[in-house]
Amino acid sequence: MPLLDHDTVQLAHGAGGRLSADLIDKLILPRFHSAELDKLEDQAVLTLPPGRVAFSTDTFVVSPLFFPGGDIGDLAVNGTVNDVAMSGAQVHALSVGFVLEEGFPLADLHRILCSMEAAAAKAGVRIVTGDTKVVGRGSCDRIFVNTSGVGVVPADVNLSASSLAGGDVVLLSGTLADHGMAVMTAREGLSFRSSVRSDTAALNGMVHDLVTACPGLKTLRDPTRGGAATTLNEFAASSKVGIKLDGAQIPVKPDVAGACEILGIDPLYVANEGKLIAVVPAAEAEAGLAAMIAHPLGTDAVMLGRVVADHPGVVTLDPGFGAERIVDMPVGKQLPRIC
Amino acid sequence: MPLLDHDTVQLAHGAGGRLSADLIDKLILPRFHSAELDKLEDQAVLTLPPGRVAFSTDTFVVSPLFFPGGDIGDLAVNGTVNDVAMSGAQVHALSVGFVLEEGFPLADLHRILCSMEAAAAKAGVRIVTGDTKVVGRGSCDRIFVNTSGVGVVPADVNLSASSLAGGDVVLLSGTLADHGMAVMTAREGLSFRSSVRSDTAALNGMVHDLVTACPGLKTLRDPTRGGAATTLNEFAASSKVGIKLDGAQIPVKPDVAGACEILGIDPLYVANEGKLIAVVPAAEAEAGLAAMIAHPLGTDAVMLGRVVADHPGVVTLDPGFGAERIVDMPVGKQLPRIC
Repeated sequence: MPLLDHDTVQLAHGAGGRLSADLIDKLILPRFHSAELDKLEDQAVLTLPPGRVAFSTDTFVVSPLFFPGGDIGDLAVNGTVNDVAMSGAQVHALSVGFVLEEGFPLADLHRILCSMEAAAAKAGVRIVTGDTKVVGRGSCDRIFVNTSGVGVVPADVNLSASSLAGGDVVLLSGTLADHGMAVMTAREGLSFRSSVRSDTAALNGMVHDLVTACPGLKTLRDPTRGGAATTLNEFAASSKVGIKLDGAQIPVKPDVAGACEILGIDPLYVANEGKLIAVVPAAEAEAGLAAMIAHPLGTDAVMLGRVVADHPGVVTLDPGFGAERIVDMPVGKQLPRIC
Repeated sequence: MPLLDHDTVQLAHGAGGRLSADLIDKLILPRFHSAELDKLEDQAVLTLPPGRVAFSTDTFVVSPLFFPGGDIGDLAVNGTVNDVAMSGAQVHALSVGFVLEEGFPLADLHRILCSMEAAAAKAGVRIVTGDTKVVGRGSCDRIFVNTSGVGVVPADVNLSASSLAGGDVVLLSGTLADHGMAVMTAREGLSFRSSVRSDTAALNGMVHDLVTACPGLKTLRDPTRGGAATTLNEFAASSKVGIKLDGAQIPVKPDVAGACEILGIDPLYVANEGKLIAVVPAAEAEAGLAAMIAHPLGTDAVMLGRVVADHPGVVTLDPGFGAERIVDMPVGKQLPRIC
């Protein structure tokens, strides 16, 4: 870690003077250098390819900050890359806004910055503008990270959660509940005896492949907070259609399933950070699934279910045995601070 | 305020389930409705005019949340509009990211949302995408607001803080230190006996006028954290030039000057939220000043000083009497949580 005059964040690191400049020049900029950021203007000026601009934002308040498989840094990069990419866009640039608590160890900040640098490089996106605020002890829980992102949507791509129709097929790119259970087990002190790891990953590469393989692609979403159940309910409500899930097709890793059972949690409601749900016309289902499986992040992809004209707004699950049940929106206190 | 089931923020309002949907549908969306936001996708897809895209972010942690002349809501809108506009861009859209503390009164949130709605309407920008997180009691100080913004820079506008040269003129659009002293006096409980009010305002309209009046415009910046002294030092360092200020030309309202004196603070170091500093070639100085003065937010504009080739990197102030002094970067603890 570069040598600074302090070991921990001081209020003056956020006051806009010499200590702020020190923090930014020595700790932050070396991790994020890009032509735009290095200018240190209050904004980045980007030359983007022509097309509609996709724009998204997310603030990350995950606790613990470091968990098996990732940390708040790569989560913040991947999360916003994914939110922008779910429009079908190619993602170009991110902004980063830190809120730091006075006393937060600069070594931890450095570790988070390195993790953001690696995630951005892997996703092929640049961090082009940023902001750092410091608040007094007790005024925030260590560090919060906001990222916003911009991308460009190809001219022939028009995705919408309200475009689903009976007969469409629901694809899922891999196992459910990895991220949420990694954070939960870390929080409960169970992680030492478990191999559960967050799936945090940038899906923009897979989105590119899917958009190419499925010209009729209806919609994409990454099932984060509230899990797959929430995403599917949102789809059903937006398109006024029903969705029928095939219970036998829900992929969950054995360790994750075990952790869910111990904690009494349904994996359909647990956050994911490196999975996407795609809805495609039936004729493109095989091509879409093949594109997912061909991508390193999609080896466990499945056809999760299908869109039906009956029971509009309702998601059901056929467990393969016994009665079909309704998969409702989650109510109440669902794993806070998962992202 | 719309009727919700609770008076205060609950953890479940941020968990992505039914209570989250309730908060967003009943309290947030009615204030921010735009074609993009109403779709409730994870990102907005914008059709922007052709040109380079200006992109900026800022997290607002101001304390107190409500202060004379404004609150965290209009500050968050105006602050990012200004950061984007200082590239010379026309500002189009904002994202909003909330971090809410469990127990925060929903009536206060509603007041902040109304204030953001009014500020966005006044600035002529749309709020197109957003995110809301809730953290437990004690994990954040009531509410933090991140805004990011995108705009489009006209083809013939190329501003840079490193383009200044000897002979250029420094213009200031109005009085200094209003915002910082409004927050300080509110915090010290002095506001009841003072008429000091924040200058929070969106400067994108004035930027449009300046870009038109001064084809040779060199750079723009809004002197927020660290005040005018910091902005001018950044200019001097980026362009490797000196800047000489005319002490007789520094506009400060009498009440603000009085509050600065009582608290022992130099107005050159105090944050502003509705002022800009422009550097123009000498030949365009009169036209630039006239454009500022013609704008409702620029009636107190002045020629603050000039760029010189000697003492590169150093800003000096000629007080009009006695010796010229150096205006250095601020060091140490300067008014935290001013924005």
